[in-house]
Amino acid sequence: MAKVFDYAEVAKHNTAESCWVILYGAVYDVTDFTSEHPGGAKVILQLAGTDATEEYDPIHPPGTLEENLKPEQKLGTIDPDTLPSTEKSPVETGEMKDEGPVDLDSLLNLDDVEDVATKQISGKAWAYYYSAGDDLISKNFNNTVYKQILLRPRIFVDCTKCDTSTSFLGNQVNLPFYVSPAAMARLANPDGEWGIAQACAQYGAMQVISQNASMTPEQIVADAKPGQVFGWQLYVQTERAKSEAMLSRMKKLPNVKFICLTLDAPVPGKREHDERQKNVGANLPVRAAVSDDPSRSNTSEDAKTGPPKNLAGVGQSLFWGTAADLTWKSTLPWLAQHTDLPIVLKGVQTHEDAYLASLHAPHVKAIILSNHGGRALDTAPPAVHTLLEIRKYCPEVFDRIEVWVDGGIKRGTDVVKALCLGAKGVGIGRGALFGLGAGGKEGVARVLEILKAETETCMRLLGVERIDQLGMQHINTRVVERDIYDGPSRLEGQTFKAKL
Amino acid sequence: MAKVFDYAEVAKHNTAESCWVILYGAVYDVTDFTSEHPGGAKVILQLAGTDATEEYDPIHPPGTLEENLKPEQKLGTIDPDTLPSTEKSPVETGEMKDEGPVDLDSLLNLDDVEDVATKQISGKAWAYYYSAGDDLISKNFNNTVYKQILLRPRIFVDCTKCDTSTSFLGNQVNLPFYVSPAAMARLANPDGEWGIAQACAQYGAMQVISQNASMTPEQIVADAKPGQVFGWQLYVQTERAKSEAMLSRMKKLPNVKFICLTLDAPVPGKREHDERQKNVGANLPVRAAVSDDPSRSNTSEDAKTGPPKNLAGVGQSLFWGTAADLTWKSTLPWLAQHTDLPIVLKGVQTHEDAYLASLHAPHVKAIILSNHGGRALDTAPPAVHTLLEIRKYCPEVFDRIEVWVDGGIKRGTDVVKALCLGAKGVGIGRGALFGLGAGGKEGVARVLEILKAETETCMRLLGVERIDQLGMQHINTRVVERDIYDGPSRLEGQTFKAKL
Amino acid sequence: MAKVFDYAEVAKHNTAESCWVILYGAVYDVTDFTSEHPGGAKVILQLAGTDATEEYDPIHPPGTLEENLKPEQKLGTIDPDTLPSTEKSPVETGEMKDEGPVDLDSLLNLDDVEDVATKQISGKAWAYYYSAGDDLISKNFNNTVYKQILLRPRIFVDCTKCDTSTSFLGNQVNLPFYVSPAAMARLANPDGEWGIAQACAQYGAMQVISQNASMTPEQIVADAKPGQVFGWQLYVQTERAKSEAMLSRMKKLPNVKFICLTLDAPVPGKREHDERQKNVGANLPVRAAVSDDPSRSNTSEDAKTGPPKNLAGVGQSLFWGTAADLTWKSTLPWLAQHTDLPIVLKGVQTHEDAYLASLHAPHVKAIILSNHGGRALDTAPPAVHTLLEIRKYCPEVFDRIEVWVDGGIKRGTDVVKALCLGAKGVGIGRGALFGLGAGGKEGVARVLEILKAETETCMRLLGVERIDQLGMQHINTRVVERDIYDGPSRLEGQTFKAKL
Amino acid sequence: MAKVFDYAEVAKHNTAESCWVILYGAVYDVTDFTSEHPGGAKVILQLAGTDATEEYDPIHPPGTLEENLKPEQKLGTIDPDTLPSTEKSPVETGEMKDEGPVDLDSLLNLDDVEDVATKQISGKAWAYYYSAGDDLISKNFNNTVYKQILLRPRIFVDCTKCDTSTSFLGNQVNLPFYVSPAAMARLANPDGEWGIAQACAQYGAMQVISQNASMTPEQIVADAKPGQVFGWQLYVQTERAKSEAMLSRMKKLPNVKFICLTLDAPVPGKREHDERQKNVGANLPVRAAVSDDPSRSNTSEDAKTGPPKNLAGVGQSLFWGTAADLTWKSTLPWLAQHTDLPIVLKGVQTHEDAYLASLHAPHVKAIILSNHGGRALDTAPPAVHTLLEIRKYCPEVFDRIEVWVDGGIKRGTDVVKALCLGAKGVGIGRGALFGLGAGGKEGVARVLEILKAETETCMRLLGVERIDQLGMQHINTRVVERDIYDGPSRLEGQTFKAKL
Repeated sequence: MAKVFDYAEVAKHNTAESCWVILYGAVYDVTDFTSEHPGGAKVILQLAGTDATEEYDPIHPPGTLEENLKPEQKLGTIDPDTLPSTEKSPVETGEMKDEGPVDLDSLLNLDDVEDVATKQISGKAWAYYYSAGDDLISKNFNNTVYKQILLRPRIFVDCTKCDTSTSFLGNQVNLPFYVSPAAMARLANPDGEWGIAQACAQYGAMQVISQNASMTPEQIVADAKPGQVFGWQLYVQTERAKSEAMLSRMKKLPNVKFICLTLDAPVPGKREHDERQKNVGANLPVRAAVSDDPSRSNTSEDAKTGPPKNLAGVGQSLFWGTAADLTWKSTLPWLAQHTDLPIVLKGVQTHEDAYLASLHAPHVKAIILSNHGGRALDTAPPAVHTLLEIRKYCPEVFDRIEVWVDGGIKRGTDVVKALCLGAKGVGIGRGALFGLGAGGKEGVARVLEILKAETETCMRLLGVERIDQLGMQHINTRVVERDIYDGPSRLEGQTFKAKL
Repeated sequence: MAKVFDYAEVAKHNTAESCWVILYGAVYDVTDFTSEHPGGAKVILQLAGTDATEEYDPIHPPGTLEENLKPEQKLGTIDPDTLPSTEKSPVETGEMKDEGPVDLDSLLNLDDVEDVATKQISGKAWAYYYSAGDDLISKNFNNTVYKQILLRPRIFVDCTKCDTSTSFLGNQVNLPFYVSPAAMARLANPDGEWGIAQACAQYGAMQVISQNASMTPEQIVADAKPGQVFGWQLYVQTERAKSEAMLSRMKKLPNVKFICLTLDAPVPGKREHDERQKNVGANLPVRAAVSDDPSRSNTSEDAKTGPPKNLAGVGQSLFWGTAADLTWKSTLPWLAQHTDLPIVLKGVQTHEDAYLASLHAPHVKAIILSNHGGRALDTAPPAVHTLLEIRKYCPEVFDRIEVWVDGGIKRGTDVVKALCLGAKGVGIGRGALFGLGAGGKEGVARVLEILKAETETCMRLLGVERIDQLGMQHINTRVVERDIYDGPSRLEGQTFKAKL
Repeated sequence: MAKVFDYAEVAKHNTAESCWVILYGAVYDVTDFTSEHPGGAKVILQLAGTDATEEYDPIHPPGTLEENLKPEQKLGTIDPDTLPSTEKSPVETGEMKDEGPVDLDSLLNLDDVEDVATKQISGKAWAYYYSAGDDLISKNFNNTVYKQILLRPRIFVDCTKCDTSTSFLGNQVNLPFYVSPAAMARLANPDGEWGIAQACAQYGAMQVISQNASMTPEQIVADAKPGQVFGWQLYVQTERAKSEAMLSRMKKLPNVKFICLTLDAPVPGKREHDERQKNVGANLPVRAAVSDDPSRSNTSEDAKTGPPKNLAGVGQSLFWGTAADLTWKSTLPWLAQHTDLPIVLKGVQTHEDAYLASLHAPHVKAIILSNHGGRALDTAPPAVHTLLEIRKYCPEVFDRIEVWVDGGIKRGTDVVKALCLGAKGVGIGRGALFGLGAGGKEGVARVLEILKAETETCMRLLGVERIDQLGMQHINTRVVERDIYDGPSRLEGQTFKAKL
Repeated sequence: MAKVFDYAEVAKHNTAESCWVILYGAVYDVTDFTSEHPGGAKVILQLAGTDATEEYDPIHPPGTLEENLKPEQKLGTIDPDTLPSTEKSPVETGEMKDEGPVDLDSLLNLDDVEDVATKQISGKAWAYYYSAGDDLISKNFNNTVYKQILLRPRIFVDCTKCDTSTSFLGNQVNLPFYVSPAAMARLANPDGEWGIAQACAQYGAMQVISQNASMTPEQIVADAKPGQVFGWQLYVQTERAKSEAMLSRMKKLPNVKFICLTLDAPVPGKREHDERQKNVGANLPVRAAVSDDPSRSNTSEDAKTGPPKNLAGVGQSLFWGTAADLTWKSTLPWLAQHTDLPIVLKGVQTHEDAYLASLHAPHVKAIILSNHGGRALDTAPPAVHTLLEIRKYCPEVFDRIEVWVDGGIKRGTDVVKALCLGAKGVGIGRGALFGLGAGGKEGVARVLEILKAETETCMRLLGVERIDQLGMQHINTRVVERDIYDGPSRLEGQTFKAKL
């Protein structure tokens, strides 16, 4: 029978030498674990000797404790009557602010949703969602580049009907946009990634589950409708066995239709909004934790200046353990050994890589043109640029594989423009998270409802009934086209020439 | 003899089950009508059991009650002594603010006029006039694109004479700009559309009457001068008989010289400024109300999410009943059956549609390049773009039909630039409405006076005496030209090639 | 012997029927004159029965009374003891504000000078100087277009010597920039145009005297140094005899070396900053007053709407009487009959007119590329555009005549860029007036000193010793060149083709 | 034995006729020296009769007194007990503000560092560091032009290793960026240029020592590590012997590997932020002082207006004595006579000069494309432009000599973009000074740490392991390329043609 502790006794173990924490009413000795914690020892030590449940819960999926701690590290349970009643301040805990109930119908667009969510969620969550690389140039350009494209509405076309349905990798969906893999959803609302799945079910939308989700994949798809489509995002771990185990788990989830291998962030970008939150932000999921290979973080000659002192921000912590040594030659074959699901490569940012990916069809079935929401390398090109680059140099890519895009989508007109340029699917990341922040699963549904209505209005005013009718004749891209790369393009011995 | 009611009795009928309202001293039972009301039941129910005259009057033309209610629904009259004396607040009623008399001569330009009108008119009226699609990108670009064009003044030209007269469809007018069909003028000032007609009479300007005017066409043209030129705007109704009846009425109005078929808004754009006013804004004219075809509002596969819950804003309500199934093949022949007047197609936004329209000459006598003041599809091209697109691909259009433009005009130099680009006429919409808001019919006259003087100054400084002398040699459009569409152009089996 | 009046008696004559004013201690009956006053009767009537000297003096050059009034209209003198002692407020009189002495050395650039002058001078003077057409687009672009041009500094060039001297029409000057004809200098400072001449003498700079100067040409050149170079600006009057008389006067002023015929403003532009000052602003010089030809102000068909009600602002008033019927064929021969001085044509804004002007060499010796400081037609091109247009279409113009420019110059780098583009001279207008406002003739000298030093620094860093070494190799104009007109160019039967 | 003075006696000598000052406890009679002081007599006279140590110390390197004063001008020592105890206010002395200790780790980027330094350092120091020519157009464009370039990240590239090491002129360094010659470092922090050297030692970075350093070269390199690389910046003095003496001193400093001859500022630019500080700013180092050749400062014809009244700002004072008569023919041979070190030419801003420099290889081993941080000629091109210009006209330059750049670098992505364009080295000037201001030598180290980490992240995300792999395929420069000079290019009889 488990021993019962008084809070006063737990409170004594508040040092690196003896570090106990209370989680969900149980008492753990994590002294040996602190050095392995992907978020660094510091964040655990800040909570040493206290009840850490509030900080731990929203960013660790169930099973995390069991996977990372040995049974004997669970010492017993806490006597709840001994717990102090003093409340922590929101600043300390990073908890959600309560701004009262939100009238979701009064939110007319995704900016409205973001504004409300910004008031509702904790500063830590906001910083993690909002942040992007360096000066946010790519993040902002992701959106404004859509505004540089003009639409070409046609008249005297019967637009009584409008059908937004399409398919992704042969799977039928009702919307041409989907929810991108977005981590840490429970930071925004307890509904978490499950809530996103619920909203997607309501609208027939696809969802890609983040490897860094705050719920397990099993929880997320638990209440899926028949035919509801999911993908699962893979960050290959330095310890490949961890990734292989996850791929095995996917085999048991029939709604998961593909593996989305993320390639646009082999090392974390520099997200300063997130880093400035580091005191609270480093409470991060244990699951990504792996070996600490110093050769990765710093291999230049003056390596004596040492490894990074602190992992800064939620974003950087999530990368801990992610493999940086993926290659065309080694990774795809390894992946084929461990999953039969189609592969989607996320993070393509040049026509060269789009072309290379297309050579791996049909194993690779789709690519996602993405600069990671501007969160990886600042001044990386927006997906619109890469779409136009592919059209210019190697349009055959569109025939070989599906091309999806994400980043910067805020309006139905943005969705339609991406489709006109050749995208088959359009991913929404922050929009879904801010929807969750604004109103849980209903907030996500509101985001999908707004975008669906805007998409339909746009299609109707263009005189288009079905997604597959959209094309370059519906948009004027001249302002963007003159900025598209026209430098050298050499690949496997052959030189690409611009075909436009 | 009509029964006389006490206010107290009327006040009891304030539910959906029994809904009475007082209008112009009479008592009506509108219980059965609420569900048919184009503005939705909600706005009526908010006024159930009260005197709704103040809200009803400025947005419903005379005859609306008679057309929509059965005689037996008029229950009797109200005893005026029983009416409560408490005044409604301006916020509740959306009524005009009184900022004192305006010195119209002190308003030097159209921005001055808008500033004053914004202070004078109700928030609801302002939102309806000011609003445009999504992020107002097209609305703003409509204006700024004129600023991208430079003028080329010539010297040593005798400019003592300056003649701004021209003709539209053979009808002589004194000004190359006209008042566009603009709805709901009485929201701004009781002079309403009749006041606009009075100002146009004074300056010899043409006026196109909106189908959604807050006065009847007969009232508007009642005091027209001999030779005063009007057009009438047609939104084809799903119930074609309603439109046919209106076309019949036009036959009795000899000043109405053409039918302006509006095509740029088969479904309403998303006007958020307007929608945010919906609590007060949904009091809209009944006249546009028609059958509620659910297939129009939502025909995509997940239609289970249902029809729009609330009609939002004045703008969306006005569209209720507008047909979305117009086509080149079906609509023009139908129109020919019901009117002998020349047809003007409003809402052309591509060279392809301009070319198609020109093939329907002489039935179609003119087109209006318009993105509906930016109120339909955001990021649709400004008329200046479409003018340059036609010049580039199919300049023969200018020989076959008249090309008019609207959107974004704020200065005489804007008018002159449009004329240099090939426009025959230049429509002013918001300018006239804000003039009305600033000073009733005198305010509209001030707007025409300002634009006329600016147009003359511009012509003189260019060294031009008559409208027909203006041409491409008077403007430098290079900044705009590099942004003009140069994508695919296929039409009825033939491929257009850029001719410039 | 002149009769002596009491103020009380004068004060009775304060109506249109009997209108007396006191000027410089004398009493005048101006009842008959009010209707002829170029600034309108209203401004005189506002001062009827009072001492108007303070309002009259800074904007009327000596001799104005004598030229415009008959001897018998001078009734006598005022008894000074009867004058009221109450001071007028600055707002009423538009008089200069006293902000204390200015440390001119602390003003480092022309913006500093303008800032200080704006605080020193009256609102009326500021509005007249600052104002430009419509939305100030041309005024601002005049300056910013220089910022679009990059300089190309060379290294390893001996730059110990730097010589800014050059010549205009063969007259030696020490500076490549000159003071443009700028009206109403005494509004800024009692030193007026004479003060500008004094500063020019100090720096060896040329000055063009405005026809609308607030001092007579004779006063302005009174203390000129030997060899000091002036031009005189001519606005041809509808009553040609008035202009002929002025040309005769010029013959007696040997420092006046040329006639600068202004062509860029045959009718006044719309200067709203100036117009908003009209209550005080209409006190304008009588000298420009001429016949009131209603055909000029409004000749369009609806002329019934009548002539302009009020002359608005200083700017518009100055145009009263200016001829709008000048032509290449009639005006130059007439001018040749009345002066032997070389002719400089001011206001060329197209390559076509530059070319036409060059055909009139050697009678026409120079042109000034000018959009009147942005004060005539808004969105007219800056001189930089016209320079590049001439280089593109008809560079032979530079060989035939001198090309000067004005508008937007604020820095020595601006001066040098204009010279590199082919300008022989660079006019400074507002800069000199604001210098005057900041510190009288010393303020103008400070402006010349700043610009001279900046010009020298720029030349030295470019590795250039003499003005004639500057050329297109010293600047990068690509950002501007892509905006240069490339539309139709037809002239006297021949078609120009772009030569670049 | 030295005489001991009372403060009261010293205080009497406070005029131009007899001017004494106290420095480091000694009393000097500088009456004869004031007129020779490069900073002007005025700044000395302001301190006449007082203890000037606080003002003198941070901007004069050791040895200055000995070099400039004769032994007999040292009169004796001050009795410290007689010194007044009143503290000078920070405003008077321009001394550093104490904002408390800075958490350097919390500074995430160079803007953070600048913000903190701005609060820490004196207004005089800030103005000297921050200031640039005229309107700061080149200074700002130096940075924003990097933002116009997009990066092209590649996927599926093993990026576990990242090596930022490279070589300059054959000398191995660990970072591709170096510290530019930046003057007056002790204005920011007592660590001064020695502190910069310490930080460079820690990170294996190169440092170029400014001729106008506030410490002697010997002091700066005193604690250098073996193999630490320095260059020494030479402003050739009008009195060549002074420069020759300095070159001799360099022979004794083996860590100094090259002479960096600065050519981009033969005369000072106009730095207004600095000039507005002139009351305190003119306390400048004596070392640059030379003959006052009036022909240099003003050689134009109206030289009677005289030499500059006051030297304004730290920047202008530093130029006193700098030779303006350098030429390709005379200067390089003279330099060869006095040093065997390789020559680096700083300040190349055109492809013509880059080409000319390359003809002087191997004597000239590198050029630095620089507009002097925007401090010389405003609207001079950024180094990015010159890089693209060389690529366009004469790419062989890159084969003949090393091309370094400076100006505007704020991010690791900026560094990488410059390297992709062909730069071998990237100079950091203000960044190092602000680092010094924010935290002394640790602050400089933090700047290097930030830039190194950002550079590594960028390389990894581009899929690049070594510096020499970076190239044009990693960037999209189209937005910049269309602005690159394409005007005339003639050089020694041959005409360059654009090769791209």
